[in-house]
Amino acid sequence: MRFVETIEKKKAGKALSKAEINHWIQGYCNGEIPDYQVSALCMAICFQGMNSQETAWLCEAMLYSGEQLDLSCIDGCICDKHSTGGVGDKTSLALAPMVAACGCKIAKMSGRGLGHTGGTLDKLESITSFRIVQNEQDFIRQVNEINLAIIGQSDRLVPADCLLYALRDVSGTVDSIPLIASSIMAKKLASGADTILLDVKYGEGAFMPTAEKAEELANAMIAIGRHFHKDTRAMITNMDQPLGMAIGNALEVKEAVATLQGRGPHDFTRLCIEAGSIMLMQAKQADNKQTAQAMLQEVIANGKVQFTRDYTR
Amino acid sequence: MRFVETIEKKKAGKALSKAEINHWIQGYCNGEIPDYQVSALCMAICFQGMNSQETAWLCEAMLYSGEQLDLSCIDGCICDKHSTGGVGDKTSLALAPMVAACGCKIAKMSGRGLGHTGGTLDKLESITSFRIVQNEQDFIRQVNEINLAIIGQSDRLVPADCLLYALRDVSGTVDSIPLIASSIMAKKLASGADTILLDVKYGEGAFMPTAEKAEELANAMIAIGRHFHKDTRAMITNMDQPLGMAIGNALEVKEAVATLQGRGPHDFTRLCIEAGSIMLMQAKQADNKQTAQAMLQEVIANGKVQFTRDYTR
Repeated sequence: MRFVETIEKKKAGKALSKAEINHWIQGYCNGEIPDYQVSALCMAICFQGMNSQETAWLCEAMLYSGEQLDLSCIDGCICDKHSTGGVGDKTSLALAPMVAACGCKIAKMSGRGLGHTGGTLDKLESITSFRIVQNEQDFIRQVNEINLAIIGQSDRLVPADCLLYALRDVSGTVDSIPLIASSIMAKKLASGADTILLDVKYGEGAFMPTAEKAEELANAMIAIGRHFHKDTRAMITNMDQPLGMAIGNALEVKEAVATLQGRGPHDFTRLCIEAGSIMLMQAKQADNKQTAQAMLQEVIANGKVQFTRDYTR
Repeated sequence: MRFVETIEKKKAGKALSKAEINHWIQGYCNGEIPDYQVSALCMAICFQGMNSQETAWLCEAMLYSGEQLDLSCIDGCICDKHSTGGVGDKTSLALAPMVAACGCKIAKMSGRGLGHTGGTLDKLESITSFRIVQNEQDFIRQVNEINLAIIGQSDRLVPADCLLYALRDVSGTVDSIPLIASSIMAKKLASGADTILLDVKYGEGAFMPTAEKAEELANAMIAIGRHFHKDTRAMITNMDQPLGMAIGNALEVKEAVATLQGRGPHDFTRLCIEAGSIMLMQAKQADNKQTAQAMLQEVIANGKVQFTRDYTR
């Protein structure tokens, strides 16, 4: 298989076969296919797109390029969520404890900031002496004990995405729906959750400029979820304004804690309740949105979801 | 200047500035800009194109990436021609002696075959003990003595094109009009001729599929010629059938010699007379096409253009 023919096929607007996509990802990971061919293919994909079948195969090839987290010793439904992110997006910090307090298992793999906004790990580490869980045994034990743990991304998971993302970043090929969708979903699938909720943001402060583009990305990811038989749902939310009032890692932690105490900004609280209610329904902890929302409001009101230390001081 | 911004600008369909194009070519030649960024840019150019100003700047940047042949010690108008090539295209072998016999100076730099057809050098070397002119002094002396010499392409001329062509070949980015036009014209301009005739072929046996595409390429090259104040003209010719009857280096030499003896195939002879008459007008050896054609027919008829040895045996 000559890889230049795969590039030319995509350039001509044709769909790639599963064999061609596997050859691309395996060949790139083992060094047989050079960067300059992959960047040309990614650029062709930016212009010609990929259909949902190709996108699912690309995600599958990336997923199987590395290990997958085995969470089978965690009892119950393991819920994950992903936000495409934006300024002031501290959703995981408040949402994860809320849904964990309602009985969901949250075994979450989080990243660091890629752009100008910090990632969840950066925000958590702004807490003095906070220690991110380092190994899988501690991670699984903590989820079984308190329903919630966050671990840093491992190099052993989805190594193809690490390579591909670094190349896309310097070759002007980041903003392609199938490339973004397969990258996000490969990481979500590798981290072993049973259900996935996607918060796809659009607007001036988000990566997707319009609600239509955000919906297109959401649909591409839901189609991948369907390919892997995972309950995958999405919210399309606006990001013309920063989320909440606080921007900056430490300030965002304070705002998340305040939200768990019922004193959070209206927009951020509403987003957490909305997302949390979908997660509770995915985990079958609630039959409908009203019940789910009431459960989340209850854990805030009764203090079940308080941090053990007061980080708001 | 961050090169990824140049890639993204072209991807978005915007025109690049002269500074951006110079940065690209200089940076690529000196190793500061990596292959994987250049291949992504070339792919974006395949989709978004370049306007005539950008194409001229690209050609200029490539031309000045190396040396230019100094032919100032040759008296008279130095004519060059270029064919986009195809199966059976041995035009240079017959055309160059014909126009040289009519008083034009032909100081031609020729290449070897890139694809399945041989280049002019390959064809000439099928003649037993034929020696391609090796150095510039011999080359210039021979042009002054017999009006005609052919030299092999030098690595010192247009090194940017050597790099870029090799990359385009393996990254599926060959078929872009501005990239082809600037590549051909940079080599023609570097080889120092006063006038340039382009034979742009279309059809099943040619690189350009249709007459419209061939005309587009011809216009792009003529615009570059205008930018450099060089008399540049083009013919658009069909290549649905191989040119002449002979295919294969040695057979093509025989057919070219037969053509110079007035025994060539009709289509090939007509093409040589047509191209030759334009070259004679460019060199101001003839005022009009009728006179030029008569001059060419005369040198064939009176044997002025015979090879010194009979290669047709």
